[in-house]
Amino acid sequence: MSSDPDRECPVDGGIDQQEMVSSKKSAVLVDGVILNGPTTDAKAGEKFVEEACRLIMEEVVLKATDVNEKVCEWRSPEQLKQLLDLEMRDTGEPHHRLLELCQDVIRYSVKTNHPRFFNQLYAGLDYYSLVARFMIEALNPSVYTYEVSPVFLLVEEAVLKKMIEFIGWKEGDGIFNPGGSVSNMYAMNLARYKYCPDIKEKGLSGLPRLILFTSAEGAAPFLVCATSGTTVLGAFDPLDEIADICERHGLWLHVDASWGGSALLSRKHRKLLHGVHRADSVAWNPHKMLMAGIQCCALLVKDKSDLLKKCYSAKASYLFQQDKFYDVSYDTGDKSIQCSRRPDAFKFWMTWKALGTSGLEERVNRALALSRYLVEEIKKREGFKLLLEPEYANICFWYIPPSLREMEEGPEFWAKLNLVAPAIKERMMKKGSLMLSYQPHRGKVNFFRQVVISPQVSREDMDFLLDEIDLLGRDM
Amino acid sequence: MSSDPDRECPVDGGIDQQEMVSSKKSAVLVDGVILNGPTTDAKAGEKFVEEACRLIMEEVVLKATDVNEKVCEWRSPEQLKQLLDLEMRDTGEPHHRLLELCQDVIRYSVKTNHPRFFNQLYAGLDYYSLVARFMIEALNPSVYTYEVSPVFLLVEEAVLKKMIEFIGWKEGDGIFNPGGSVSNMYAMNLARYKYCPDIKEKGLSGLPRLILFTSAEGAAPFLVCATSGTTVLGAFDPLDEIADICERHGLWLHVDASWGGSALLSRKHRKLLHGVHRADSVAWNPHKMLMAGIQCCALLVKDKSDLLKKCYSAKASYLFQQDKFYDVSYDTGDKSIQCSRRPDAFKFWMTWKALGTSGLEERVNRALALSRYLVEEIKKREGFKLLLEPEYANICFWYIPPSLREMEEGPEFWAKLNLVAPAIKERMMKKGSLMLSYQPHRGKVNFFRQVVISPQVSREDMDFLLDEIDLLGRDM
Repeated sequence: MSSDPDRECPVDGGIDQQEMVSSKKSAVLVDGVILNGPTTDAKAGEKFVEEACRLIMEEVVLKATDVNEKVCEWRSPEQLKQLLDLEMRDTGEPHHRLLELCQDVIRYSVKTNHPRFFNQLYAGLDYYSLVARFMIEALNPSVYTYEVSPVFLLVEEAVLKKMIEFIGWKEGDGIFNPGGSVSNMYAMNLARYKYCPDIKEKGLSGLPRLILFTSAEGAAPFLVCATSGTTVLGAFDPLDEIADICERHGLWLHVDASWGGSALLSRKHRKLLHGVHRADSVAWNPHKMLMAGIQCCALLVKDKSDLLKKCYSAKASYLFQQDKFYDVSYDTGDKSIQCSRRPDAFKFWMTWKALGTSGLEERVNRALALSRYLVEEIKKREGFKLLLEPEYANICFWYIPPSLREMEEGPEFWAKLNLVAPAIKERMMKKGSLMLSYQPHRGKVNFFRQVVISPQVSREDMDFLLDEIDLLGRDM
Repeated sequence: MSSDPDRECPVDGGIDQQEMVSSKKSAVLVDGVILNGPTTDAKAGEKFVEEACRLIMEEVVLKATDVNEKVCEWRSPEQLKQLLDLEMRDTGEPHHRLLELCQDVIRYSVKTNHPRFFNQLYAGLDYYSLVARFMIEALNPSVYTYEVSPVFLLVEEAVLKKMIEFIGWKEGDGIFNPGGSVSNMYAMNLARYKYCPDIKEKGLSGLPRLILFTSAEGAAPFLVCATSGTTVLGAFDPLDEIADICERHGLWLHVDASWGGSALLSRKHRKLLHGVHRADSVAWNPHKMLMAGIQCCALLVKDKSDLLKKCYSAKASYLFQQDKFYDVSYDTGDKSIQCSRRPDAFKFWMTWKALGTSGLEERVNRALALSRYLVEEIKKREGFKLLLEPEYANICFWYIPPSLREMEEGPEFWAKLNLVAPAIKERMMKKGSLMLSYQPHRGKVNFFRQVVISPQVSREDMDFLLDEIDLLGRDM
């Protein structure tokens, strides 16, 4: 081994490397590896990125709003394994082959941007969050310390502050994290920590049996979890009444508003969450109704005594050095259960900057107005039956095929109706014309759940939805 | 409200909307919202995405390999808040203004792709995973059911299979998740569940006090967590010896190989993890040494009795319907603590396809060879002192400025040396010439930790690193 740039070093690699060395005057070798200069062909890599970006633009972004494209190109798992070249081999593939693979991945992926993708609690293409997301991937930040993520930490702070304002708290804290479930876990941990601050040292075994809701069995209630916007029905709990009980008994009130939280941006609809300002913590996912892209989820906390940090801090000396030359209160990573953490707040920030609060409000209002339109259409059309009047953007309904329309609503009727939605779902996916979900729920047999989100969706898509279901199911 | 396309509907919005309606023959209004046609200007949105992509390409991707660019453009939090227009307002910003904002975000973000960013356990730009990441953002999938993520679920299956092969298990299971900490949490939950399968119903209070490691206090040991590649020192636990003990006492062996796992791809270096095939679970993050992009983290489990599903399944009826028309064993989302989940396996898959196993192996070998080179240089240079012989790609060392070189290594020496790394770090960040981390650790005063990962890094960068530290610190 040598650091002398004019000296050739001994080679313990193969012949190729020996040849490379002899052509490189100042080559330094360690363990048979030439250490001079980068080994990556940056020019070729950059060209590949450019070509792939063009493909993504043409095949995904530009086609996103085209209702003539299929929502999905259905293949069974076995067929798809045959069609895709999934195996990772010892040697790499050339760029043209990788571009073909990208094309295949796009072709057989479900188009969640498509105006007729209504299958989940997210949908559509927001051009602004998409740009933010491309930027995140290119910059590859991790949001734990100010020194590594100065911009994204300040953006997160600004977004959390704004969300807290819409909840109606004077101040608060919060953290973006990978999902509503994780937000809810945070809330439980915080409530437990507040109830018993020495849990970090003593563990659960040092505590009485904790339960999540008031009961009379000698256990210690500490948390009530209310929901604003349930997944299936889009139902909202009466937060004010629940808050009364929590205040009376000193319980932590957590509101899972992962889905319904975005109604707070609408002056018309924020009453759905009346009383949310009395919560101790709120989970709210802008990646759902506000289209920030999977994932963008915040847990907001009313407490300002640094509870997140007290509960989660592990004081990693290699990240959170206290002798840094800047204000280390900006190193917010010690509030998180994650170490590496993505700057998801930035996606929401970009959309908010682009649309303004008024633009976000308009989106919520339009989605809920379209939902109302669909409800009224369902009521008018033969063969469609509303499950219940929706509170939000989930419209739950049955399609009753002609053969069942005259039947009495007894056990046989329900048993037969239970088979209808899965059969229509199969047909619509194989045709690729639209996607919406179905499920049974609390004693109700399989029904469709239509979710309205994207501003690319119009009244024409609602009409299409009902026409298409009727078309697919009228022979049943 | 009306569905008749030829009838104008009553308006309860403002004058602008009334005018819009009168110009639109078949407009349908609900709650003052026009429901005809999409409201998004797709053409303008597409143009914005195209312009932003050009900016990202020019300012991030093409500059990524240029050592003449700054690693960071340091500003204090207060300065940066002044420079950035963080506030979200009631009205949106025009596209040209948004592009300026994007430019600012890029300018003041740390360039983690830069060849002289050595600050974390990830670094550099991998063109293949970058393309995969752009595709993920454009397609916006969520990996829970085959119907929504057919391609990405199969890719995850293929990647997990391959990782399991490199661990040395005959079969196994696994899940990609948002970070090594979450992987470790999964492992703890699984070990606990295996130890006491009724924990899901009874909770922790039904169990004896569990502890993570053998002890003699009447508690029940159930898990040993070994580490392959510690964060600061890059140290590896002797897995074979630990596995002997675990086998003898029936303990679950979890190996946190978040950082060190990638050595498994090198025939030369995989001996660092000798015995890993005897583990019950392994955490391994390809986003670190293998550059798959934040985040790409797998938890691998040896058990094939569907333990992940047994432990985590919540059987959400709206996602995991059992009456679907395809093989629902592909709906792997019920194995996860998350609901929405990103297809992180795809990023690693794309890089693996592009480089082949041999290309990945070469990267690991080169990073470790460069580390050896740096170690030998440190030994040769005056004023540099190695903390210990590294096992992996973490090189820990002190820089001893001229004023301390003649001093005896007593309390005063260490107290003064403790101030050197933070001071040099401040200077390097303000200059923007490179970034590496420092920390105190187990009684050792502040030392530098250099991490070598990217194939864009060369021996010249190692020389630069030492020259630059000397330049920044020689007046101290």
